[in-house]
Amino acid sequence: MARSVSVGLIGLGTIGTGVARMLLERARHQGTDPDGTIALSRIADKDTSDREFEIPSGVRGENADDVLLDDDIDIVVELIGGTGAAREFVLKAIENGKHVVTANKALISAYGDEIFSAAEANGVDVLFEAAVGGSIPILRALRESLQTSRIDSVYGIVNGTTNYILTRMSSEGAPYDELLASAQEQGFAERDPSADVKGWDSQQKLAILLRFAFGAGATPDQILCEGIESVTPLDLDFAREFGYTVKLLAIAKRHDNGIEARVHPAMIPAGSVMAGVKYEYNAVEVIGEEFGTQMFYGKGAGQRPTATVVASDVLDIAQRIQTGASCCRVGNLLAGDGAPPIISADELTMRHYVRLEVEDRAGVLEHIANVFASQGISIESVVQKGRAEGETVPLVIMTHEATEYSARTAVASLEDLSYVRAPVQRIRVEELS
Amino acid sequence: MARSVSVGLIGLGTIGTGVARMLLERARHQGTDPDGTIALSRIADKDTSDREFEIPSGVRGENADDVLLDDDIDIVVELIGGTGAAREFVLKAIENGKHVVTANKALISAYGDEIFSAAEANGVDVLFEAAVGGSIPILRALRESLQTSRIDSVYGIVNGTTNYILTRMSSEGAPYDELLASAQEQGFAERDPSADVKGWDSQQKLAILLRFAFGAGATPDQILCEGIESVTPLDLDFAREFGYTVKLLAIAKRHDNGIEARVHPAMIPAGSVMAGVKYEYNAVEVIGEEFGTQMFYGKGAGQRPTATVVASDVLDIAQRIQTGASCCRVGNLLAGDGAPPIISADELTMRHYVRLEVEDRAGVLEHIANVFASQGISIESVVQKGRAEGETVPLVIMTHEATEYSARTAVASLEDLSYVRAPVQRIRVEELS
Repeated sequence: MARSVSVGLIGLGTIGTGVARMLLERARHQGTDPDGTIALSRIADKDTSDREFEIPSGVRGENADDVLLDDDIDIVVELIGGTGAAREFVLKAIENGKHVVTANKALISAYGDEIFSAAEANGVDVLFEAAVGGSIPILRALRESLQTSRIDSVYGIVNGTTNYILTRMSSEGAPYDELLASAQEQGFAERDPSADVKGWDSQQKLAILLRFAFGAGATPDQILCEGIESVTPLDLDFAREFGYTVKLLAIAKRHDNGIEARVHPAMIPAGSVMAGVKYEYNAVEVIGEEFGTQMFYGKGAGQRPTATVVASDVLDIAQRIQTGASCCRVGNLLAGDGAPPIISADELTMRHYVRLEVEDRAGVLEHIANVFASQGISIESVVQKGRAEGETVPLVIMTHEATEYSARTAVASLEDLSYVRAPVQRIRVEELS
Repeated sequence: MARSVSVGLIGLGTIGTGVARMLLERARHQGTDPDGTIALSRIADKDTSDREFEIPSGVRGENADDVLLDDDIDIVVELIGGTGAAREFVLKAIENGKHVVTANKALISAYGDEIFSAAEANGVDVLFEAAVGGSIPILRALRESLQTSRIDSVYGIVNGTTNYILTRMSSEGAPYDELLASAQEQGFAERDPSADVKGWDSQQKLAILLRFAFGAGATPDQILCEGIESVTPLDLDFAREFGYTVKLLAIAKRHDNGIEARVHPAMIPAGSVMAGVKYEYNAVEVIGEEFGTQMFYGKGAGQRPTATVVASDVLDIAQRIQTGASCCRVGNLLAGDGAPPIISADELTMRHYVRLEVEDRAGVLEHIANVFASQGISIESVVQKGRAEGETVPLVIMTHEATEYSARTAVASLEDLSYVRAPVQRIRVEELS
């Protein structure tokens, strides 16, 4: 019989409760641990209120050190989130020779190098599949299944809250504020939705993907990031006219001089597979030199989908312990000297959708065209909706390829024009080649 | 530095050549084996003609025993296919304590229990990710990432050749024979296409999926199987009218009394993600109690996509050897006493599309309706196209849920009617709930 493995859990919130339930109640039923050799032996959480299931006596406490300093514990599951106490606990666990499982994207994306170095020095594993794509096993696929091919690009919808809002905005035409409030009511968005709607959550996830796909050691702040707050139903209507839909995408591509990385609302072809990813679902596409295009699709959040992935990471490490494997697999996540740099956002080129509210009078279009021309941006098409002498009307311009810098500069110049009502809307176009 | 691992390859065909090239030329470039500790040291193939790249002298020979009996070899890659010599070689490799990597779906689906038992007895691993879904890491996902949830269903498009033909039939309206010939010219179909177009390839892949998803030990012959040869452009036109498209699906679902398993052309909703899987692409959806729906999408065949997956399996085992893990992970693929049975195909219930060529005369529809009624099948809708007194016209009937047995019996009765031209076409409807 396999040696028994002891698991400690810190953080009994929504995900933690789901993980605890699975490890306590389910492992045996699923046949993954028929002998009961993997035991959740300690749980620490400051909140001592009751949970939805019974926890055996003696297991639960308030103090993280009860988990971190328990010599019998092999694996520590960190589910308190954030980069304060969580960082301290994870490093302490590693220093005490414990393997770590976490779903903490903020922590891994910001302190990856510190954590992976410590893990390598202490010969322990750190798994965090749930940090990117919820239930989708994208990190495992990149690390294990796709490792024999060079990866050329990775992109996808990695935030369920924003995809839920954009899906409903597209189908119902309701404005952002109304949809956000509804999403909050239904539990699809947090009370403070900033991390989701401003794109920070996607930015953190993309930073983690960059390590797995390209060996890059970027922190989130190196990644161009824009949220969905300014996207309007009118933009979605125009997108539809041009054959596009709008999704909050995380995009990374390999270039000769480094890695292109960005998070922003993107107009993508309405017929693309990515356009069909709706509501709270996530999807990640990976394009590799050898295998071509692969896509992974599933629920990006939620208690049970996330908990099942955390539990899978726990079982993965437990099974390695039981088969006697030396465990550290984080070594090649450390970005070494040869790691590719992140290309400056200003240099990135793409097409742009620009929507202005302009006064409808003669000569306006010429002036506007001049602003683009002065930035070296050529215009692909112009659409003006409605006519109303003296009033403002929407004017939409699709540009050819232009740099982020020149497009941003052009928009700032447009906002300075007296007959243009600020702010000018700009949405980047992504053909998902 | 990690201990060196020696790999032997039997079968230098299309895939074998791709794998040899990757292992000889690429591993170092990809950073997966920077120290060059994983070496392809022996290759055996009866065909001694030149390949597209140079093989170091002393590596290549004609005799499989040079690989199988070489004490230095840790991993044997079997890529000759079939269930004759391949079975013998795989068992001999296992008995000699070597781990095995193969892409051989015929072998694994028919002789899984024999091979996994031998592997368990000898403490070696057998990996075969490339046997199902080409480049898609579906077996790894089921085994590792989704192991903590009960799986309720698995279904997908697992054969690229038939999907290529059906995609073109749908977009171009060309008949099956013409499209098959074109697919053969372009290398998307074999000279003898039987295994693909008759569904046997999908049937073998589904048998393997049944083990991973449900712990079932079915052999392919227990799975209802029908190919695409009788599907016509006319059926695709009718499908479109009803809001469906036709795909060759492999479907498995868990029921209280066992597992439903079938391979056949299926009418699926035109707006479903599966309907968007085109040409040679494959996709597999997995629905689990905990994580909901997940989808995996990628190239189902081809030299490089398949070779990269085989090479990943080789690296997986090599890395386990290097970390000192005991290796046998096939134990829980053995279908034990509690393995669920495959439900008899006759008992499966679904909706059916039935297309008849009938003489256009009074009373015909009443007779036909009687045939369905006598089998207890209720009709959802009837569409008749065109009117031509005395000539035959297509009549399409969509049924409500009916058993496979009653639908088959009804079709046989219809074919006996004097004013119905045999054969009557029947395509099962799958709502992909």
